[in-house]
Amino acid sequence: MLASCMAMTTHLISLAAALAFAAPLAAQDEAEAPPSPGEIVDQAAADEWKAIPAEDLLVMTLAPDSQGNERQVVIQLLPAPYSETWTANIRTLARTGWYDGIAVIRSQDNYVVQWGDPETGGQPKPLPPELLETTEADYISTSMHGDQDSIVLWHPRNAIDDNYAGSTLFYDGWPLGFEIGESTKQLTRWPLHCYGMVGVARSMSPNAGDGSSLYTVIGHAPRHLDRNIALAGRIVEGMEHLSTLPRGKGALGFYEDASRQTPIVSVRVASDLPARERPEFEFLDTEGETFNRYAEARMNRRDPFFIVPAGGADICNIPVPVRRVAE
Amino acid sequence: MLASCMAMTTHLISLAAALAFAAPLAAQDEAEAPPSPGEIVDQAAADEWKAIPAEDLLVMTLAPDSQGNERQVVIQLLPAPYSETWTANIRTLARTGWYDGIAVIRSQDNYVVQWGDPETGGQPKPLPPELLETTEADYISTSMHGDQDSIVLWHPRNAIDDNYAGSTLFYDGWPLGFEIGESTKQLTRWPLHCYGMVGVARSMSPNAGDGSSLYTVIGHAPRHLDRNIALAGRIVEGMEHLSTLPRGKGALGFYEDASRQTPIVSVRVASDLPARERPEFEFLDTEGETFNRYAEARMNRRDPFFIVPAGGADICNIPVPVRRVAE
Repeated sequence: MLASCMAMTTHLISLAAALAFAAPLAAQDEAEAPPSPGEIVDQAAADEWKAIPAEDLLVMTLAPDSQGNERQVVIQLLPAPYSETWTANIRTLARTGWYDGIAVIRSQDNYVVQWGDPETGGQPKPLPPELLETTEADYISTSMHGDQDSIVLWHPRNAIDDNYAGSTLFYDGWPLGFEIGESTKQLTRWPLHCYGMVGVARSMSPNAGDGSSLYTVIGHAPRHLDRNIALAGRIVEGMEHLSTLPRGKGALGFYEDASRQTPIVSVRVASDLPARERPEFEFLDTEGETFNRYAEARMNRRDPFFIVPAGGADICNIPVPVRRVAE
Repeated sequence: MLASCMAMTTHLISLAAALAFAAPLAAQDEAEAPPSPGEIVDQAAADEWKAIPAEDLLVMTLAPDSQGNERQVVIQLLPAPYSETWTANIRTLARTGWYDGIAVIRSQDNYVVQWGDPETGGQPKPLPPELLETTEADYISTSMHGDQDSIVLWHPRNAIDDNYAGSTLFYDGWPLGFEIGESTKQLTRWPLHCYGMVGVARSMSPNAGDGSSLYTVIGHAPRHLDRNIALAGRIVEGMEHLSTLPRGKGALGFYEDASRQTPIVSVRVASDLPARERPEFEFLDTEGETFNRYAEARMNRRDPFFIVPAGGADICNIPVPVRRVAE
């Protein structure tokens, strides 16, 4: 979805208008009209796109849909220093084949879709012994003010006011919250529950989740979950295969009828795939000039459809451009 | 979806945990644990629920799904003084039967689902002559500071900081943005593009849309559309029938293949239906004490699942409780 966000414009037009206006507008206004956010991204120089390591990409294959169409979802895992025990566990679960044969077990409207062990036969599937311990303290990443990361992070250009965190910004391709301890001067930062982000299901605290059950956000950003659950990554392709699943009728959107669950055939780390099957993705450098222009345009739409620029945006309404590398 | 939001809690739990924890927690912690937002709403007194007039409810019946299940969506129209020309047109289009036989023509992930004239045969369907003219000026509602409405609106209790509007608040059951002109002291206010809100598709300005094509928000709130398009209402039941529709593969999520469109069988104003078929809904008084406690709890989750209360929320993450009146 993050990739497809970039292809869209935000015009809400009738079908008739789409047909009637598309050609004349393109010819007439292209030279003069301020560019849309998507057009700004299209103008980025090649070196503003940063490759996502194949070790950070997961390919999740769902069972085909009722019409026999293939359904593949690509997940980008968070890089260090965020959620490292969980992303290590997720790679272990993928590499041991543990995820193969689990299912999407929950779909709750305007909230999350969740996958995990369906416990067919009433017994949980034994977990690999090499999983790491996870702790709530690791929901945030802490560093001392003054290191190189902190200096970049302090760059005020990308800071965005926020009702949940002291402030938010984009850094290294991700939306983050951050706070500076008044006395300690310690910097804490954490990833945010925007649309399409992937998190680690857990039960009651102090359980911090092991990575065997994951969810993705399919509605308005549930930012109250920030710092309360580990985020582990985001969907970069195939989001629609999860967001359109029928909603579960049980409590919290769990499927009461197991036949409504969607089987997960396999989950593979992209770097383990043969080169020709390995998907390649890249994201727009969030420290670059183009991203800065793009974010500003998302806050102040001046392309022809718009009348009143908003003057701002919340960070989850500025999706980081991610795209598949053309073959 | 607004109704179903109220039934949910935000626990992200594994299926095993759900089964294992549900009973003991209910018995053990109910008396002591701070209530969840949903539990607060459940405690509201009967007179804090306000009836929605049947004249403000639309019943939209989609064709049955591929398994023959019925699909009904209930829309609440915005009350005066918002979008009055559009809501009048929508009632006219419903009462003349114009909507019967149109279709869902667009589904764009993390954005909108839109319905309107599919132009089968290449010809637009003629519109009823009695439709009112609409103008962009009516995207906002203006009043002089000092009238009774403004005084209530100034009540600081419900005001929430916002990156798009000067400030936002809940008033008479709806999320609104508002601004006061510095020299004029005029108050302007407008409804907000939260999840499930229904708006009026338009082509390029100064076209302001006539109500024959509508959309609903199925992703993170596209608040940049506020004051740029007319909102006309919100979905109060059956949101999942729209949000789970397959995404269109054409530009902006339009269906390239007309066979993927979902036919709309009929749209009726509830007050025109026989009494026994008339759905009845009510919303939680947003000026009441219970709503205030609910909104505060959405900003500071203290129920047992949570570790770090956020300290705030954006207005679209505080859905107004709406429920069907029990028969």
